[in-house]
Amino acid sequence: MKFTITRSTFIKTLNDVSRAISSKTTIPILTGLKLVLTDDSLVLTGSDADISIEARIDANSETNDLQVESTGAIVLPARFFSEIVKRLPEAKMTVEVRDNLQTVITSGASEFTINGLDADQYPRLPEISAPNPLVFDPAILKQLISQTVIAVSNQESRPMLTGVHLTISGNTLVAVATDSHRLAQRVLELQTPTNQDYDVIIPGKSLIELSRTMDDDLDQVEIRIAENQVLFIAGNTAFYSRLLEGNYPDTTRLIPTSSTTTIEFSAPAFLAAIQRASLLSHESRNNVVRLNINVADQKATIYGNSPDVGNVEEELQFSNLQGDDLEISFNPDYMKDALQSFGQSTIEVAFTAPLRPFTLVPSEDKTHFIQLITPVRTY
Amino acid sequence: MKFTITRSTFIKTLNDVSRAISSKTTIPILTGLKLVLTDDSLVLTGSDADISIEARIDANSETNDLQVESTGAIVLPARFFSEIVKRLPEAKMTVEVRDNLQTVITSGASEFTINGLDADQYPRLPEISAPNPLVFDPAILKQLISQTVIAVSNQESRPMLTGVHLTISGNTLVAVATDSHRLAQRVLELQTPTNQDYDVIIPGKSLIELSRTMDDDLDQVEIRIAENQVLFIAGNTAFYSRLLEGNYPDTTRLIPTSSTTTIEFSAPAFLAAIQRASLLSHESRNNVVRLNINVADQKATIYGNSPDVGNVEEELQFSNLQGDDLEISFNPDYMKDALQSFGQSTIEVAFTAPLRPFTLVPSEDKTHFIQLITPVRTY
Repeated sequence: MKFTITRSTFIKTLNDVSRAISSKTTIPILTGLKLVLTDDSLVLTGSDADISIEARIDANSETNDLQVESTGAIVLPARFFSEIVKRLPEAKMTVEVRDNLQTVITSGASEFTINGLDADQYPRLPEISAPNPLVFDPAILKQLISQTVIAVSNQESRPMLTGVHLTISGNTLVAVATDSHRLAQRVLELQTPTNQDYDVIIPGKSLIELSRTMDDDLDQVEIRIAENQVLFIAGNTAFYSRLLEGNYPDTTRLIPTSSTTTIEFSAPAFLAAIQRASLLSHESRNNVVRLNINVADQKATIYGNSPDVGNVEEELQFSNLQGDDLEISFNPDYMKDALQSFGQSTIEVAFTAPLRPFTLVPSEDKTHFIQLITPVRTY
Repeated sequence: MKFTITRSTFIKTLNDVSRAISSKTTIPILTGLKLVLTDDSLVLTGSDADISIEARIDANSETNDLQVESTGAIVLPARFFSEIVKRLPEAKMTVEVRDNLQTVITSGASEFTINGLDADQYPRLPEISAPNPLVFDPAILKQLISQTVIAVSNQESRPMLTGVHLTISGNTLVAVATDSHRLAQRVLELQTPTNQDYDVIIPGKSLIELSRTMDDDLDQVEIRIAENQVLFIAGNTAFYSRLLEGNYPDTTRLIPTSSTTTIEFSAPAFLAAIQRASLLSHESRNNVVRLNINVADQKATIYGNSPDVGNVEEELQFSNLQGDDLEISFNPDYMKDALQSFGQSTIEVAFTAPLRPFTLVPSEDKTHFIQLITPVRTY
């Protein structure tokens, strides 16, 4: 195997694939990067067993400037190889596999010789045959991910809660995540109805990594779902993730359908006030802030308190306060995550009772995106 | 005590003073920030016992927009107070000390109440009377610091080597640091000769922090040296550091006066080659790279090797190679630190023997700045 390539092209692809490679893996060969060179292309593969990323550099594209001298395959120590490539002196580099898997990397006057591993020992990627892929706008998929993964659990005691639950039926896609203290749900209307229903749980970590690999200049992302794997195809990159097993809890009954108090906030202004209040709550043992709503006086006040350090009180700016008076306490970090997911929107917060979950929705569209937070009992 | 101030002005000064405040101090009150308000000014003080920084905000300057309502003093929890100030909603803030040292910080609708400490309990800063301060150009002082602190030891077993040795006599200042494996020396000619000789050791950490507090727009830095303290005055900021005790070793005899091989490199190009070679040496137990100089062939080659990973070989660009052939091994990290201190210069490296220290000096001026590195025996 021998090829010459423009280093900047190679580094970009190498960075994408490296996201899947962990130095903490228990399978030694997975600390490596797999390179497969054919007459048409150079394919880079990285994997941590949960996620695998495969990226293709086309030999026929002029911008890539890939010159194939002899085909072949090798696995190289990923972190180390990547550091070498980034530090090479010239714009071009040559990689050549010699005897005994010894691989020589040259650029200008610099010549590295490193020990490779046999590419045949590298685990094979799953074969996914899903004849009718779903097609998404990458920007919408990225938004859906960022709006839901915040509510994913990071505790392995209930593994399925570490994923986002995706149900697709007809022309509706519902994505839900909950760690049992809070919930995030996003509903999408598909342009073409699916001819097959899906009900899968995708690990939150996979979705976060997927989001990072998706460039803003992509036209579309294709999703293929199989028995226990999902494949996302974006440009020249194929992103594989395993699916989580188990039955995701029924979350539809958790979302309240009526409310007794509603109030509207500007999401960023409310977020700033919550961040100030949390400075105090973070110093106390129970990380809780208190919201007091007085409908007659048209006042909403947030309180934070730490017995050691002091306390904070702030009257909030709001609009459209209706319903009953209320005093409610909640974890400000859940509220911060939820508010951040609304960007610059105006949101409606709807309460039923001090100990019942409350909801946040965009004022403009109350049906496609909802955040739910369970309050904290403080007495 | 009560004042109102433009928050951005206050934050800038607060950041400067906070550099001296450590949360790891064994003296609880030093985790605090001291505020002293008079009719003329607000003075902020932070200290970790080794370094103390005092900064003054003038009440008579319009840009500061400091309004003094009632004078007084307080110590506030530094980290926490700083987080509050940065998150306040409005451009202005008011700080008021009420009964029992309770301090109220208000800005817009936000009101924080935090527990202060008695300012009388805060340690006093040393009084330094040095009638004839030394005056420096801040840019030159910063350069002198960055060129020498790299060679300071970070091992507490020989405390005085953790400092930079400063000797001032007549119109010459010599700054030297060594960790016994390498040495850096910078000589300055003073514009006005000193009428008092000095021989002090300033902790490297203090100099690094001092460098960070010096803005680029300063006109001058004044240095006052006392028995066991040094005071740097830069603009409205006074920076105190303790001095290290003990007799610094005589370093003059360490610097070789003759050489058998000399070679010139572009510092940044040589640095890049050393960084590549160190990728391999960092993977091996003894972190060493090897330089081979062949005068007859006019070749200089650098080698790095790791039995597990592989090896690297690179022919170096150089000019003006003279003297005897040589093969020498050294720690590439020492070489990297040294080369970085030369910026974009061309440097002359002078060797005497494979196991004797070698020197690096700028080709343009070989007397005012020298870096020395001790090689490593590899057999």
